[in-house]
Amino acid sequence: MFDYKILASQGRARAGFFSTPHGDLETPLFAPVGTQATVKMVTSAQLDELGASLVLSNTYHLYLRPGDELVAEQGGLHEFMRWPHPMLTDSGGFQVFSLAQTRRIDDEGVTFKSHIDGSTHRFTPEKSIQIQENLGADIIMAFDECSDPNDHAYSKIAMERTHRWAERCLAAKQRGDQALFGIVQGGVNPELRAASAQFIASLPFPGIAIGGLSVGETKDEMHSTLDLVTPLLPENRPRYLMGVGTPEDLINGIARGIDIFDCVLPTRLARHNAVFSSEGRLNLMNAIFAHDKRPIDAACTCYTCQTFTRAYLRHLIVARELLAGTLLSIHNLHALIQLVREMRGSIVDNTFEKKVPFWLAQWQGNAERISPNTHGIITTTS
Amino acid sequence: MFDYKILASQGRARAGFFSTPHGDLETPLFAPVGTQATVKMVTSAQLDELGASLVLSNTYHLYLRPGDELVAEQGGLHEFMRWPHPMLTDSGGFQVFSLAQTRRIDDEGVTFKSHIDGSTHRFTPEKSIQIQENLGADIIMAFDECSDPNDHAYSKIAMERTHRWAERCLAAKQRGDQALFGIVQGGVNPELRAASAQFIASLPFPGIAIGGLSVGETKDEMHSTLDLVTPLLPENRPRYLMGVGTPEDLINGIARGIDIFDCVLPTRLARHNAVFSSEGRLNLMNAIFAHDKRPIDAACTCYTCQTFTRAYLRHLIVARELLAGTLLSIHNLHALIQLVREMRGSIVDNTFEKKVPFWLAQWQGNAERISPNTHGIITTTS
Repeated sequence: MFDYKILASQGRARAGFFSTPHGDLETPLFAPVGTQATVKMVTSAQLDELGASLVLSNTYHLYLRPGDELVAEQGGLHEFMRWPHPMLTDSGGFQVFSLAQTRRIDDEGVTFKSHIDGSTHRFTPEKSIQIQENLGADIIMAFDECSDPNDHAYSKIAMERTHRWAERCLAAKQRGDQALFGIVQGGVNPELRAASAQFIASLPFPGIAIGGLSVGETKDEMHSTLDLVTPLLPENRPRYLMGVGTPEDLINGIARGIDIFDCVLPTRLARHNAVFSSEGRLNLMNAIFAHDKRPIDAACTCYTCQTFTRAYLRHLIVARELLAGTLLSIHNLHALIQLVREMRGSIVDNTFEKKVPFWLAQWQGNAERISPNTHGIITTTS
Repeated sequence: MFDYKILASQGRARAGFFSTPHGDLETPLFAPVGTQATVKMVTSAQLDELGASLVLSNTYHLYLRPGDELVAEQGGLHEFMRWPHPMLTDSGGFQVFSLAQTRRIDDEGVTFKSHIDGSTHRFTPEKSIQIQENLGADIIMAFDECSDPNDHAYSKIAMERTHRWAERCLAAKQRGDQALFGIVQGGVNPELRAASAQFIASLPFPGIAIGGLSVGETKDEMHSTLDLVTPLLPENRPRYLMGVGTPEDLINGIARGIDIFDCVLPTRLARHNAVFSSEGRLNLMNAIFAHDKRPIDAACTCYTCQTFTRAYLRHLIVARELLAGTLLSIHNLHALIQLVREMRGSIVDNTFEKKVPFWLAQWQGNAERISPNTHGIITTTS
């Protein structure tokens, strides 16, 4: 269990398998985010059909509502939301730290107020692991502290605390059927990042995540951080770049040796009427689509593109029919999952490096971010 | 085309086939309402899977948005919304008359203001037919005037106008591939209803609808009106009871010789967290369902009941996840379609009359209406 096997590699890009109690994951992969035990507006049958393999859910949200003990009593997260394939939960740390107005950090843990009812709660590394054991995902995450990447002094403090907490998470873990991943922090400072990568890699985590990226740093800083960190990580464990990506980020991440990605972007964009396409990002509310009989993307094999025209999707948006959110989510999730799957195939047949410039050109019009909030910071539209 | 064949009958209940350009309809049937060229929150694939045969859409709404000419240019309603099975459009009359504050009726037609932007428009019988020919449904409806059932003087005026307009609709019709149904009016007055049934039956309509019910009259008045009207209608044409039903209404309607029903109730209830069940109507927001591992209805074969627990559905509702609306809509539509299908089977095997008391007892807890607005009067939540 939790073996990572490399099937093929090209440059730093790797194609592999990661075994979990709910099946083998083919990596690299893109994981849809199901914040509150559901990928917003998409049924588990639709998720399966669009090719999702790993689904992420959020510890902070599920702890508050419906409560991790209720989820455990219902048979765990897989059974509760009826997702028979692998799942991952985050530690809750990122969400708690994003509650900047109401949280208090000390070396033991974090005290915060619920965004739902203002009630006071406390997370510690041990508490995060206990909640994640109740939720029962295949992959669980260490409780870490994400810093402002440009604040060097704070990045150092947060990194050191992340390291102490990583050891406490390992000590607290009891279930044998969950893989606990450690998290590398250190902002965009090369020395801190290198120290963090080496420290986290020295601990017995079956997988390693890179946190603290896509939180306000530049693209160049993200790339140079990945260029520094992935060579310091062991080859035989999967690497997870948290809360990333745009199509461009996925291409650049895989080229730098990343195996797992997650991001709320595809479903959030869908709820704002925006879709990924090989023509660039489109906003389907635009009047130019009113009579357009084409699918979103002629090459796309998702249910939405195989079935509906841009004119119909625009009508749903203009008429405020919520079905638009479902259909656009299906397309955007499929687009990223399919792009990553294509890259995996090209690593296997040794054409990856040749195709990278083509993919970057094809998807570049989708690269701009709507906001730095790609991780699922707590908002009313998260 | 548009032949109605009786396969079996018991008492006044009939099981039959109605042939249309998009396939044979097995009657009796319940038609989901897709007001704006979509059944709210349900994909056409999900509609197909839950067993829908005929889908209704609204002329008033589609005329305003996206416009009937745009729908025609996109290949008609079937092609636009990708529903390959039979469709029905109403005449727009009911919606226009429900705009009580802003409409002006004269003998030629009705002038009204759009609920979207306040712009002024005019429907006449000829205009309604022209719009419905642009939309291209298999079954289209005559432009009628629905009166307050308890206002005898107005019911007489509205009925007489409905009769004159019925003849104008027949004269205006040009397409040969659409069945135009006439509509019986007359409020709850037996003389008016009998006169209207005889007049409409005398015209060459391939099907006949009963309008002006489920608009504020009592259940007894609805039943006695059906008892009076259906025996006056020709056996060899389908009968459509517009804007009805609750489960109880479907049972009582079929027992009185009705073949086709439509109603916004199942999808509207779903968006208010309410579901039909053999235990009676349930509101899944209720805290008693927080730990309930059962499906909505143990006997139900819909995707929602075959997949999810009440505890999970309640979590989605409490967490304001829109997926709840989709899953509850699937269940409620399936429940009514399946109930009508069961009744059809029992007419064929001659057990219908014996089973009516059982069905009425089983479904009685679902009978109360949330409001008299089961037709899709224009509201923000329609």
